[in-house]
Amino acid sequence: MVARNATAAVIGAGDFIGAAIAKKFAVEGFTVFAGRRNGDKLVPLVAEIKAAGGEVSARSLDARKEEDITAFLQEADRQAPLEVCIFNVGANVNFPILETTDRVFRKVWEMACWAGFVAGRESARLMVPRGKGNIFFTGATASLRGGSGYAAFASAKFGLRAVAQSIARELGPKNIHVAHLIIDSGVDTAWVRERREKLWGKEALDNPDLLMPPASVAASYWQLYQQPRSAWTFELEIRPFGEKW
Amino acid sequence: MVARNATAAVIGAGDFIGAAIAKKFAVEGFTVFAGRRNGDKLVPLVAEIKAAGGEVSARSLDARKEEDITAFLQEADRQAPLEVCIFNVGANVNFPILETTDRVFRKVWEMACWAGFVAGRESARLMVPRGKGNIFFTGATASLRGGSGYAAFASAKFGLRAVAQSIARELGPKNIHVAHLIIDSGVDTAWVRERREKLWGKEALDNPDLLMPPASVAASYWQLYQQPRSAWTFELEIRPFGEKW
Amino acid sequence: MVARNATAAVIGAGDFIGAAIAKKFAVEGFTVFAGRRNGDKLVPLVAEIKAAGGEVSARSLDARKEEDITAFLQEADRQAPLEVCIFNVGANVNFPILETTDRVFRKVWEMACWAGFVAGRESARLMVPRGKGNIFFTGATASLRGGSGYAAFASAKFGLRAVAQSIARELGPKNIHVAHLIIDSGVDTAWVRERREKLWGKEALDNPDLLMPPASVAASYWQLYQQPRSAWTFELEIRPFGEKW
Amino acid sequence: MVARNATAAVIGAGDFIGAAIAKKFAVEGFTVFAGRRNGDKLVPLVAEIKAAGGEVSARSLDARKEEDITAFLQEADRQAPLEVCIFNVGANVNFPILETTDRVFRKVWEMACWAGFVAGRESARLMVPRGKGNIFFTGATASLRGGSGYAAFASAKFGLRAVAQSIARELGPKNIHVAHLIIDSGVDTAWVRERREKLWGKEALDNPDLLMPPASVAASYWQLYQQPRSAWTFELEIRPFGEKW
Repeated sequence: MVARNATAAVIGAGDFIGAAIAKKFAVEGFTVFAGRRNGDKLVPLVAEIKAAGGEVSARSLDARKEEDITAFLQEADRQAPLEVCIFNVGANVNFPILETTDRVFRKVWEMACWAGFVAGRESARLMVPRGKGNIFFTGATASLRGGSGYAAFASAKFGLRAVAQSIARELGPKNIHVAHLIIDSGVDTAWVRERREKLWGKEALDNPDLLMPPASVAASYWQLYQQPRSAWTFELEIRPFGEKW
Repeated sequence: MVARNATAAVIGAGDFIGAAIAKKFAVEGFTVFAGRRNGDKLVPLVAEIKAAGGEVSARSLDARKEEDITAFLQEADRQAPLEVCIFNVGANVNFPILETTDRVFRKVWEMACWAGFVAGRESARLMVPRGKGNIFFTGATASLRGGSGYAAFASAKFGLRAVAQSIARELGPKNIHVAHLIIDSGVDTAWVRERREKLWGKEALDNPDLLMPPASVAASYWQLYQQPRSAWTFELEIRPFGEKW
Repeated sequence: MVARNATAAVIGAGDFIGAAIAKKFAVEGFTVFAGRRNGDKLVPLVAEIKAAGGEVSARSLDARKEEDITAFLQEADRQAPLEVCIFNVGANVNFPILETTDRVFRKVWEMACWAGFVAGRESARLMVPRGKGNIFFTGATASLRGGSGYAAFASAKFGLRAVAQSIARELGPKNIHVAHLIIDSGVDTAWVRERREKLWGKEALDNPDLLMPPASVAASYWQLYQQPRSAWTFELEIRPFGEKW
Repeated sequence: MVARNATAAVIGAGDFIGAAIAKKFAVEGFTVFAGRRNGDKLVPLVAEIKAAGGEVSARSLDARKEEDITAFLQEADRQAPLEVCIFNVGANVNFPILETTDRVFRKVWEMACWAGFVAGRESARLMVPRGKGNIFFTGATASLRGGSGYAAFASAKFGLRAVAQSIARELGPKNIHVAHLIIDSGVDTAWVRERREKLWGKEALDNPDLLMPPASVAASYWQLYQQPRSAWTFELEIRPFGEKW
């Protein structure tokens, strides 16, 4: 592992996708800054990264607070110049429209869209003066499709996609790569496994070709990072080979 | 004019598109319920509709308050069964990302997306038990494209489109027509004329083929209303014949 | 019925959609020119339109022959100025890729895409000098989605959509309304009923909310025709209210 | 360079993109099979690859002849198992619709769409029994947008995209990665430089950020090849960082 003088910040460093991204960028020599609601839960991730010789800091971070995101990114940038910011906060819920409360609609939006806007803007504030950087956002099938029962979640994900597109168009010419990764399948997490089992029974877990391993999402982000600026992708869709789409 | 026992509610009954919609549905025999931030500004519209023999009520309505929307629609429904709800609140702004404040981002979203969610849900609450109704949303070019400087506006419009899609899929089979009208051009309003003149000079106003008359937007909504349920459109895009797209 | 001095040409006047379009435009006073592979099959349609007091001519027309389309449209235009051309030739097939022959791929394309290009161009040739007209194309779900087994059909329908878009952008400013109607469901035809029964059993026919009546397609074309040029739709999607999408 | 027992076939191995792809896969250890209309023009490419220690065969190939494509791929497969087929035949033309002849429309389609269908099918015939492979198609802005004057070109490119999508959905579960690369900018070729100079003057060439180097296209294909099957991309869009989109 060759250390770089560069930080990769992961906002929404959950146990699955977020953790995999953190590990990947750490193993590639980045100083990783990982934030999630309850920073205590990052202890095993930190241990794992450090055991492998990586650099990592963990922080509690309420993505619904502007000052938390700002402070998190500024601290990351003081460690080493912020080169990559990955926004990975999720908030998947499904309710019939008549049962979708203001509270749910607003909270999902604040977590999955508003926080992404703030993360994008505050990363840009640090990267623009330096004339380089990477700002990546995690999207989902619901970024492109408002399915029945997904008014809250899809609305937030559509909104996040617009934020990403808008700043990609503004900051691309300033040498900042903004990308939006659409994960068009379930990711292999405890929550998804549980939900699939409930909906379709135990046999729905039998087919490993239909659940995306978190490490593959991390690999996709790494591909985006490696692209030369003469051939940047804004939107990258990924799905397992067995997925129906 | 043949009076119907039916109400058409217009949320966001501004001087141009909203007013044209109100006039069209009034002339077709609907009892119109028109709401906007400052209800006093609806005086001329009410006078015009009444002079033509139409039925109309005007209300002050803060679309950012859940209770205002709920009360407005319930009152409309007491007048005569709510058959059409048209959500037409706009909030077009353009700022570089670094100058887009939390305040702007949140306010634009509350007006252009969140209020649409509440309007859709509260209309559904009245229409579902009756097994029929129409819920229409006004979209824009920014509903499909996040241009540079449009992080706030496009994010809200993308989000509104997701709300519309999601409830269209849920409520269509319940005989409620949910549609999203994409106006892919400038509308002929005082504000748009002023902005075009500022950007491109007086000659930018010379070509009437490029500014959509509010009455044509109203006519498009009327077409959506008239569709048989065996051939409903969810998304209708319109632009003047001279528009480059 | 008020007769107009105007012709509506229907290329692909099959027993269902095409016939319904012909009847609608006839009843609205157009001189209808109806063409299909075997013109003899148009006898009942002609009888029905004439019985209702309409004007109609029927022709055999091989849509895969440039000279046939050209001659058909020129003859139509001699009857009365060609004001509407509707291209409605279908060619729905499904084969695994390894069983899709050159012959099938080419024939489907010639019928569903190439013929549409020629029909569009030859209509334009007659309409452009007059500074007005309408050119409409029938699309399908496969115009937007290349499903498994649809390499031939979707490829032709995607291609037809591109033709429509390209000439819409070129001819719109010349006052010619070019539109593409996406029928996002099965249409209620003998062939579709048979296929559904085979795939899913007789009960698949029980739900009339999922099969679009040909008359509703015709009504949609009539809506497109009626749009003022200040608010033209290029792409109109329709589906029955009960359709899952 | 570690030699692999695997062939990468490039159909449409022109001087720019095609040559860059051939060089990339050769340097990664593939036996490269390169075909273009006039195989003599491949002499410098072959020399360059061999000088670098790579394996390459060059063939004359008329992509509009089914038997040529079939023979080319079969021969490639006899050399070493066909693992990658990249279809890269272009045919960019722009004509007003009234000047778009049957000859042009048909030829562009045969080159840019029909030949892609045959290449995809014949690759699949070799890959399916082996249970693995990669089939990649080169797309363009015109794959998604039918601009004015592009009826022929966009129609072919839309059609090719449908072919790619359709076989991706069919063959993905059979472990064959089918992808469609959308190059959303001009590529730095002699032809594009000449055209830009003609349209906008010499200064249009000054900005290197707007012309994509062929090697970057090749790098994108290499990224697609490297993706694990648990996270395949079907459609990859690339553009230079300075591009307006």
